[in-house]
Amino acid sequence: MSRKAIAGIAASSGIAIAKAFRLESPELNVNKTVITDPAAEIARFEQAIATSISDLEIIKEHIHKQLGEEQAAIFAAHLLVLSDPELIHPIKEKITFEQVNAEFALNEVSSKFIDLFESMEDAYMRERADDIRDVTKRVLSHLLHVNSTDLKTITEEVIIVAKDLAPSDTAQLNRQFVKGFTTDNGGRTSHSAIMARSMELPAVVGTKRGTTRIQHGDIIIIDGIDGKVIVNPTAQTMKVYKEKKLAYEAKKAEWAQLIHQPTTSTDGHFVELAANIGTPEDVKSALENGAEGIGLYRTEFLYMGRDTFPTEEEQFEAYKTVLEHMKGKPVIVRTLDIGGDKELPYLSLPQEKNPFLGFCAIRFSLSMQDMFRTQLRALLRASTYGHLKIMFPMIATLSEFRQAKTILLEEKDKLQAEGIEVAEQIDIGIMVEIPSTAIMADLFAKEVDFFSIGTNDLIQYTLAADRLNESVAYLYQPYHPALLRLIKHVIDAAHKEGKWVGMCGEMAGDELAIPILLALGLDEFSMSATSILKARSQILHLSKADWSKHIEHILSMSTAEEVSAFIKRQH
Amino acid sequence: MSRKAIAGIAASSGIAIAKAFRLESPELNVNKTVITDPAAEIARFEQAIATSISDLEIIKEHIHKQLGEEQAAIFAAHLLVLSDPELIHPIKEKITFEQVNAEFALNEVSSKFIDLFESMEDAYMRERADDIRDVTKRVLSHLLHVNSTDLKTITEEVIIVAKDLAPSDTAQLNRQFVKGFTTDNGGRTSHSAIMARSMELPAVVGTKRGTTRIQHGDIIIIDGIDGKVIVNPTAQTMKVYKEKKLAYEAKKAEWAQLIHQPTTSTDGHFVELAANIGTPEDVKSALENGAEGIGLYRTEFLYMGRDTFPTEEEQFEAYKTVLEHMKGKPVIVRTLDIGGDKELPYLSLPQEKNPFLGFCAIRFSLSMQDMFRTQLRALLRASTYGHLKIMFPMIATLSEFRQAKTILLEEKDKLQAEGIEVAEQIDIGIMVEIPSTAIMADLFAKEVDFFSIGTNDLIQYTLAADRLNESVAYLYQPYHPALLRLIKHVIDAAHKEGKWVGMCGEMAGDELAIPILLALGLDEFSMSATSILKARSQILHLSKADWSKHIEHILSMSTAEEVSAFIKRQH
Repeated sequence: MSRKAIAGIAASSGIAIAKAFRLESPELNVNKTVITDPAAEIARFEQAIATSISDLEIIKEHIHKQLGEEQAAIFAAHLLVLSDPELIHPIKEKITFEQVNAEFALNEVSSKFIDLFESMEDAYMRERADDIRDVTKRVLSHLLHVNSTDLKTITEEVIIVAKDLAPSDTAQLNRQFVKGFTTDNGGRTSHSAIMARSMELPAVVGTKRGTTRIQHGDIIIIDGIDGKVIVNPTAQTMKVYKEKKLAYEAKKAEWAQLIHQPTTSTDGHFVELAANIGTPEDVKSALENGAEGIGLYRTEFLYMGRDTFPTEEEQFEAYKTVLEHMKGKPVIVRTLDIGGDKELPYLSLPQEKNPFLGFCAIRFSLSMQDMFRTQLRALLRASTYGHLKIMFPMIATLSEFRQAKTILLEEKDKLQAEGIEVAEQIDIGIMVEIPSTAIMADLFAKEVDFFSIGTNDLIQYTLAADRLNESVAYLYQPYHPALLRLIKHVIDAAHKEGKWVGMCGEMAGDELAIPILLALGLDEFSMSATSILKARSQILHLSKADWSKHIEHILSMSTAEEVSAFIKRQH
Repeated sequence: MSRKAIAGIAASSGIAIAKAFRLESPELNVNKTVITDPAAEIARFEQAIATSISDLEIIKEHIHKQLGEEQAAIFAAHLLVLSDPELIHPIKEKITFEQVNAEFALNEVSSKFIDLFESMEDAYMRERADDIRDVTKRVLSHLLHVNSTDLKTITEEVIIVAKDLAPSDTAQLNRQFVKGFTTDNGGRTSHSAIMARSMELPAVVGTKRGTTRIQHGDIIIIDGIDGKVIVNPTAQTMKVYKEKKLAYEAKKAEWAQLIHQPTTSTDGHFVELAANIGTPEDVKSALENGAEGIGLYRTEFLYMGRDTFPTEEEQFEAYKTVLEHMKGKPVIVRTLDIGGDKELPYLSLPQEKNPFLGFCAIRFSLSMQDMFRTQLRALLRASTYGHLKIMFPMIATLSEFRQAKTILLEEKDKLQAEGIEVAEQIDIGIMVEIPSTAIMADLFAKEVDFFSIGTNDLIQYTLAADRLNESVAYLYQPYHPALLRLIKHVIDAAHKEGKWVGMCGEMAGDELAIPILLALGLDEFSMSATSILKARSQILHLSKADWSKHIEHILSMSTAEEVSAFIKRQH
């Protein structure tokens, strides 16, 4: 066994040291057999479906309690697959008319759907292939009476080692005994990686064939900070990692002290640190991690994993819950940002060649005004329960902003005419995520109440590189001077008009970017809840004045590499 | 018959007045019949294929001579379809094993391919569906002995009226008798529209169901200037259009006087007007239309409609021909700009979710260095035959430019070491079509010899709107102040370093944009050859100084609508 570390993607931070538990996927061999009693075979199939549904209901409930609605949505999607007549009906037909066994019929039909979905351009559709694959395995294992390794039987501290982890596997991990995991497949944004972060479980994914080097029972170290897995470490290595683990835990403990502390630089400049959330359940973690507000409440999840648009009432309840739980702290709700890489199954929009340059977000809302007005009414009605600010996504022109604002004010007037109370003052802002809007920030600043810079998109449009396309990933450059120039222009333009500027892209929580953003005068940093305390700790040790001296120099650099090298040298 | 004009898309400028010639698609009814002698049936099928190939060879040759290689490429693609075993083999199999007639087998197999290609995301692939449909019709008509209306039999002046025109129909139009055409289908960039413009044939396309209102023999007017078709005009209307036609022709005659005249504003500011070309054959039209240089030689066509990369020799010949024919006038050759909406069939690059933000142009060339070096060697070898400048497309970062330039200089050194002569001075420039590059123009200007602003792409990235997506077409705004600010920044930055700036997007030939571009100091305007004389005539009547006074005001406007309204008011 080589002692060279296995390299992978750091999917969830922290260090775990424990015995390897190899999770083997059970063999689900399907043979074709001729059956004589199709009705009995269909009954057997229906029984397997029923058992699978009951499995999934339990898992979903469990996950909802432990991790919130966003994570549970995956299993809601699995349940939808099992009740989809387009999948179930052809299987029963095959059993009846071709007189074949249920396993074979299931496998044939679902393979066809998996192939179909996998061949599609769209990420949402390709994920449907994963759902069907996961669900098919579950039903097959019931039909074949093959039990998957029961993760609940684990009773000692282990690290899970697997080729791949299905969301349903991750969901069943018992946090008491499972200390971390590593997989051959997956990336930083795969479902399992996202779950690992919310479970605060160190994880290294995407090791290619790395896990083949690990035997069941080996002692392994998961370094979720640097993306490495060490197998059977020497005493020396073990010592180093035990220290690294202690240091990481000490740092986390130190950060935990900062929950109620304001974020002030060494020279007394105050900034606000806020959290990005997706569902009302996320508020708890935001507050536990010291968020001073919600800088971005993505409302997409309200619209996803269902068959129809959410009603005004459903939305009102969600917005009200978030506002109440935040107890007067500001909550910026972004109106529906659908399209691009996010689709709604009940909205059959035409397939687009370039969805990131397509009909999405505010473009969509301005054209589907009924849907937009419903969301705005729900927001306005909820506004009296806390400190609401409303933000429009993907604004490219002033005309769009004016149109959206007019619709908002119309709905406000209507509600007031109906005698429904609406908060006196609701700030109306925009995402700055399209170059034209960054360039025109001086004129926008006269009309909006605030800006929130969405760097994920702004970077991809500014450099014309799809951030999800691996071939051009090298062009996704947060430190590119062109981007920093745009950010400076936006902040200066806003401050000139007495408006404030936030940022809600990944960059706001990036260790290398934070000193520059502080120096440029960014007022609010909104990030994943789990990044807030680390960022606060960093800013408490930075001097805005010192970093401001470097800004002119940094903006005159010609490449992103120069910028990042310079920042690293200052540390 | 209503006398209301039929509205459509102005696909090719000018006015035509003549009798309507309704081109009806022949009925190609295919029945399934059982055959007894498959060998004879296959022979019949092969005969129809052979006749079709001979048709296409003739049309291709004819078009090549009349309109150049770019247009002829369509028929080269049709010929490829007819020799594609993936299409032909399954048809023969069907005839043999299912004992069905050739018509039925052909129809079944090609329908499957058409459906497949039509369901694809990619525009290139969807065009393949058109090719197969066009070719299938041709083979079917030979099998069924149904003759299409023979366009060559037309012996009086007519305007062609059709639901749709296949490229092969357009190709057969006899310019002596056919004065224009109108179709229900198509857009400004469909093949037939492009052909109409090179044939200088007035055309209105995309009338939806407009042509159903026209009877064979009706007198109709095609207004290719404003996109209207008038059926059986009143004497009054006829008079108006005859005058409009004369005025248009007078203007064209006036423009023709300007072929050798320099383009100077009323206050003595000189600019260069150049042509965009796709093939060496286009040089003739460029010179006839008074181009003072080639502002953009797109080299993609050299790589398209074939099975392998073009050799260094083939490329050398093409570049040499263009340079020689331009007799010392500058020729800017853009290195391969593949990807995005342009693909090469022999390069199976992975399908991308957002090809416009993908692996294309210089990104591709820097990674496929063999291919890139071959192109550069061919260019360098041709450089002694005229005045060559080399331009890199889709530059997003200075690192990319430096890398491309290094490779170019390496190849130059190698050639010189081999004793091959290379021009002393070859300017090296870049397309400015990505926001980051426009923003960083001050630093680029220190390292490049020139800029050419590619507005088609720059607009779509700046406003994050796919220019080929109809749902967001309203965001493709050439007069958006953000774009004008970027253009000003690029021109100012270049001039500060003593470099010049051209523009090779559609905008350079746009009547409303020209005054602003002149005032901003654009040095070179490169456009379709047929737009040059009109642009020259316009600039001869403009004062740069007068328009410069408005620039600050225009750049402080908040929307594209304000800008265009202002320019129109000045006219």
